[in-house]
Amino acid sequence: MEDRVNAFVPGPRVRIPGRTGGPLAGLTFAAKDLFDVAGVPTGGGNHDWAKFNPVPERHAWAVQTLLDAGAELVGKTITDEVSLGILGENPFDGTPVNAAAPGRVPGGSSSGSAAAVAAGLCDIALGTDTGGSVRVPASFCGLHGIRPTHGRLDVSGMMAQAPSSDTTGWFARDARSFAKVSTVMLGEAPGALPTTLLVAADAFGFADPDVAAALAPMVERLGRIVGHVREEIMAPQGLSVWARAQRTLQPVEAWQTFQPWIERANPRMAFSVVSGLLTGAQMPAAERNWAALMRQEARARLRHLLPPGTILCLPTTPFPAPSRGLPLAELQPLRDRISCLCAQGGLTGSPQVNLPGATVDGAPVGLSIIGGRGTDATLVAVAQALDAAS
Amino acid sequence: MEDRVNAFVPGPRVRIPGRTGGPLAGLTFAAKDLFDVAGVPTGGGNHDWAKFNPVPERHAWAVQTLLDAGAELVGKTITDEVSLGILGENPFDGTPVNAAAPGRVPGGSSSGSAAAVAAGLCDIALGTDTGGSVRVPASFCGLHGIRPTHGRLDVSGMMAQAPSSDTTGWFARDARSFAKVSTVMLGEAPGALPTTLLVAADAFGFADPDVAAALAPMVERLGRIVGHVREEIMAPQGLSVWARAQRTLQPVEAWQTFQPWIERANPRMAFSVVSGLLTGAQMPAAERNWAALMRQEARARLRHLLPPGTILCLPTTPFPAPSRGLPLAELQPLRDRISCLCAQGGLTGSPQVNLPGATVDGAPVGLSIIGGRGTDATLVAVAQALDAAS
Repeated sequence: MEDRVNAFVPGPRVRIPGRTGGPLAGLTFAAKDLFDVAGVPTGGGNHDWAKFNPVPERHAWAVQTLLDAGAELVGKTITDEVSLGILGENPFDGTPVNAAAPGRVPGGSSSGSAAAVAAGLCDIALGTDTGGSVRVPASFCGLHGIRPTHGRLDVSGMMAQAPSSDTTGWFARDARSFAKVSTVMLGEAPGALPTTLLVAADAFGFADPDVAAALAPMVERLGRIVGHVREEIMAPQGLSVWARAQRTLQPVEAWQTFQPWIERANPRMAFSVVSGLLTGAQMPAAERNWAALMRQEARARLRHLLPPGTILCLPTTPFPAPSRGLPLAELQPLRDRISCLCAQGGLTGSPQVNLPGATVDGAPVGLSIIGGRGTDATLVAVAQALDAAS
Repeated sequence: MEDRVNAFVPGPRVRIPGRTGGPLAGLTFAAKDLFDVAGVPTGGGNHDWAKFNPVPERHAWAVQTLLDAGAELVGKTITDEVSLGILGENPFDGTPVNAAAPGRVPGGSSSGSAAAVAAGLCDIALGTDTGGSVRVPASFCGLHGIRPTHGRLDVSGMMAQAPSSDTTGWFARDARSFAKVSTVMLGEAPGALPTTLLVAADAFGFADPDVAAALAPMVERLGRIVGHVREEIMAPQGLSVWARAQRTLQPVEAWQTFQPWIERANPRMAFSVVSGLLTGAQMPAAERNWAALMRQEARARLRHLLPPGTILCLPTTPFPAPSRGLPLAELQPLRDRISCLCAQGGLTGSPQVNLPGATVDGAPVGLSIIGGRGTDATLVAVAQALDAAS
């Protein structure tokens, strides 16, 4: 299928048929160019990555799992450089087009995977989520997308960024495909519905008012499905404090991950990417130590808020996708605001699913549901039920 | 002429004949891709520069001056990214080959200009020198090269880096061409010879012992030409202290120069280039203030050492050109050492000429002569006399 949205990496398209007769037979999938495909260089979104890293000899676990389940791989997709980006703009391979809101960014770093699914070029797609890289493009492109419980899935063959936050996620256009792929990836069918819905008052208050208004009908439907509804403050220490902790820990780990490559290759990178890595390289120990303590507080908070049977909802992003091609000086404050609504994922490891269904000025914006660690299948069940109720 | 050393920027080669009958008639020249040529995008050594800057409508002063004097422009040459580099490695256009020492870097940032002259692809070439960008490649490639008195020449149409240190320089293979082009560029014929030669004991002590040994015969010949010879400490505060001051002031100015472009374009740059710029962006005011005071001390020192009729000599670089393709972690200490022998140029604005004539392990290494501000023509005369005496 022609790549009319610049979702796939340049060059010949890799295609691998799935095992016949599997539960995902008939579905096509794409893999973010951070996942290994045997015999194909993993590009990592940066032209100096593949030059300094060996061609993989085996498929990443996630790729192998989908192939074994019968899905057909139809290509590798553009990613923000070495997964460091949240808006989906890549100066090397170009920015994928957001079919749901052309003229706006697709979100990142799983930009091409989201763009390919949104444009109907494949049914499902693999992404990675460290600080929001599945959730944000799912929100901006109007897709189902999951960041699973951290540590639940095998990440072998997936390029690391910040291992204590890295997860393998996936996108689908509809709740049915989403449930099917989730069942395969999680190794667990959609679970029982929760009985309590918490509405994160701090997160809704932090989002643009028109985003909160656009999501209100979805929250109402969700409440009818779940039963009990209660407002809560998700992050009593402050969303920006959680974000600060995550944005202290994540760059420190990312620097540790990429330092050997950088010190060998002196790679070309967008200015903003280097700037973020150097923030990690130069992080004072006092900041790191504080951030590690705040991470413990955040984990305790979500354990307290989310006993079995309870989920929490919040806007996935504080606004719909910004315009493409904004100057760097305007991008940074947008990234900072996004991280305030996404930091809990990397910080606490809790699973989170983006539910599509609302728009602002014609552009999608998603509602997220979060559950306690390990409750991924519950969130998938909620996505199915909400779709059935719509 | 075929570009067998990758000296010229990719794409069609620009050629402009010189005015007939000028003093440089019959000579060909190349211009570093920081100099404007009317109607040709100025590349600046970075693929995201020309996209965000207009195509120049007129020639740079230096280009126009050489054309008016009868030299023929035969191309634009590769430069380190936005002149930020001292070794001559460019990840976008490739590293020019040092014909005098293949397998070693050419030096930078005027890498292509030096490589083109060294390979005989043109007679003379324009470079820029802020922190050593003419002197270092002249030393590494075995060329005559000058960093003129700061502020003496019109820099219009030359891409700025750190304006209080930026200069327009040039290269030539032989002393005769060097004198001819210098006469045109300086608007002054080679002057009277000096009568006192100072030998910078601190700088010779800082260079590799085999470099000091290789330069000794040149120093001896120079002494016979000049007359009185005396050892002196050039930088009583420390060569590394002068370098520290220059490497505080220069990145601060470079950041001011490039910040608007960066904040608009988020350009791709080598990691090391961004890292240097951010050093400037984050420089504490206390460091900046101290460095400005040390600059005054360094200027006073050279005024004291270099009354009319006195010149000083030192190794241009502490070693010959390093190997190509070294990992970043090995490059940084080399850059730091080079800057200890080059900092006086940007810091004091004194003119400096590199004299070829020595080798270590078959690779060129140059002897530099420095005079008081405005004595450029004296240094050119010394170059001529040394050549005649050899």
